Amino acid sequence: MSGPIKKGYVRPLDLKHGRVDLGHGGGGRAMAQLIDEMFAAAFANEYLAPGDDGAVLPAPGAGERMVLATDAHVVSPLFFPGGDIGCLSVHGTVNDVAVMGARPLYLAAAFVLEEGFPLADLARIVRSMAAAARDAGVPVVTGDTKVVEQGKGDGVFITTTGVGALARGRDISGRGARPGDVVLVSGTLGDHGMAILSQREALGFETEIVSDTAALHRLVDDLLLAVPDVHVLRDPTRGGLATTLNEIAVQSGVGITLDEATIPIDAQVEAACEFLGLDPLYVANEGKLVAVVPGDRAAAALAALQAHPLGRRAAAIGEVSEDPNCFVQIRTAFGGRRMVDWLSGDQLPRIC
Amino acid sequence: MSGPIKKGYVRPLDLKHGRVDLGHGGGGRAMAQLIDEMFAAAFANEYLAPGDDGAVLPAPGAGERMVLATDAHVVSPLFFPGGDIGCLSVHGTVNDVAVMGARPLYLAAAFVLEEGFPLADLARIVRSMAAAARDAGVPVVTGDTKVVEQGKGDGVFITTTGVGALARGRDISGRGARPGDVVLVSGTLGDHGMAILSQREALGFETEIVSDTAALHRLVDDLLLAVPDVHVLRDPTRGGLATTLNEIAVQSGVGITLDEATIPIDAQVEAACEFLGLDPLYVANEGKLVAVVPGDRAAAALAALQAHPLGRRAAAIGEVSEDPNCFVQIRTAFGGRRMVDWLSGDQLPRIC
Repeated sequence: MSGPIKKGYVRPLDLKHGRVDLGHGGGGRAMAQLIDEMFAAAFANEYLAPGDDGAVLPAPGAGERMVLATDAHVVSPLFFPGGDIGCLSVHGTVNDVAVMGARPLYLAAAFVLEEGFPLADLARIVRSMAAAARDAGVPVVTGDTKVVEQGKGDGVFITTTGVGALARGRDISGRGARPGDVVLVSGTLGDHGMAILSQREALGFETEIVSDTAALHRLVDDLLLAVPDVHVLRDPTRGGLATTLNEIAVQSGVGITLDEATIPIDAQVEAACEFLGLDPLYVANEGKLVAVVPGDRAAAALAALQAHPLGRRAAAIGEVSEDPNCFVQIRTAFGGRRMVDWLSGDQLPRIC
Repeated sequence: MSGPIKKGYVRPLDLKHGRVDLGHGGGGRAMAQLIDEMFAAAFANEYLAPGDDGAVLPAPGAGERMVLATDAHVVSPLFFPGGDIGCLSVHGTVNDVAVMGARPLYLAAAFVLEEGFPLADLARIVRSMAAAARDAGVPVVTGDTKVVEQGKGDGVFITTTGVGALARGRDISGRGARPGDVVLVSGTLGDHGMAILSQREALGFETEIVSDTAALHRLVDDLLLAVPDVHVLRDPTRGGLATTLNEIAVQSGVGITLDEATIPIDAQVEAACEFLGLDPLYVANEGKLVAVVPGDRAAAALAALQAHPLGRRAAAIGEVSEDPNCFVQIRTAFGGRRMVDWLSGDQLPRIC
């Protein structure tokens, strides 16, 4: 039974010069063709193949719990050094599942397309998404496509939702930080945000800053194998490390103190941040892990991170203390101390 | 531990005159406040409460499989007779899970908000969504919020993703229709689409057409209790009954013939369709079920549907036959026969 012939497509999608039109979201033949020739072709897997309204999937194993995470992606520009909205939308949600300590199993993907968007760009995004899903070993098993009129969207927005399996007894949460714990990061901070900004702003100088967008679940696996009693995992995306640590401090009811000298920051990112008057602690990451671990397990955790390609520049950057105010502070290189507040206002819109 | 105080909100969200700004999507304090005071307050449940990047959930039971379905909602206008984008985004995804024969368990929700959108409208939508989730018994357990600049979105888009549990041995799919099966619908066709259109177009006359938006999982339960061997279930949304039946015909490799006289259509919907030159068979529904059942179970299935408040106007409307061309046809009231093709072009953009 050949879908395309039965559905009477007159000619294949014009992936070179074609554009998204409202019919591609109308539910009829044009939408079926877009799904067949664009999405199903790229994401091909046994769960997607039946073409029903949802996917039927093996559930997590006996004794396992389920983790569910969702992320809308509206990054602008859609293509940036080191990635695009396609791979980002896979990595972002895989990471949200992974930082719960869960094994990512499946992704759902919903597209909101703007009328007039070039099909060639959409195809490039979908291929990037499919490659990221394949590399991560997490298939896109179901999806949806809507189209809005020109001027009512911005090219493409992609919402991905991830399902993971959580082993019995594993309890990793923002509420888990305890006084005496050590705070680790898996590498340099602010790369993703500055890669995006370097495309938007006239920086006045050449940079080669590349987004760190990456799937972190295998790094998490290695870390948990070495140190099963990790207390907190997070990926510091919007709002950067500073906001993530403030969230953890409030959720856990503790204080956190960082050592500025130990925080890994790429020299070009630092220069670009200075030029734009930004603090890299507030700039988004898309392939970095924050881990809060018991003090006596910090060395083992650090070694596990550094042994993985995505954690080579991992560092211990601070410690958790008792603090009813839940403050995050930093010891500066000059021996001073300053507060690291929540991100206020909107430093970097549409970073992910 | 009191989140709001610790996070230092100066004053509560202004739900009367406030508007969405880019800071509400920035990942910092403004976003935390929007999530606390708007989303967490409305959706309150044990899974959402920890405030992590994902929700930890009991998995489906032993021997059960999982169903995953996702839907982006971009309906325009946001508020319409009988509902709004909030309840629609719950019903749409609950129904996608239910028509797989699965028990809906959890929802994830991702919002793309346009800068300048009134917080009062957002609150109304979120309350409607929360009420729909409560009524359906399917909690919103995790979510995400992004904000795009004015003119890059259209008020609010909501993508919901549903997880369901599928009983062992249950196999309901668009591929299941067999010659001799009977096609049932649970009620009048085209109500949702015409309720939306009546808001958009100058109809030139008064109508009181109300969207049929509703969660169908309990109707499905009753049907499956009476007739466990249902072959196909679908909710005929975009593209209407005609497109849904064409999809089923192609997936199953069969033909379908309808009896025009038996298809339930509300008199006002029929009049409005005639006025606008639309065929109600192509108009979207958001609270109707198509069921394909073995011929000898049709009477029992019809009785089960009619016994439920959402199925009172259910009818048997056609039958499945052998047809290598997978045609859908209709016997007209005058004894003729015509083809019911896929929806071509874009009859009704942004209907859901």
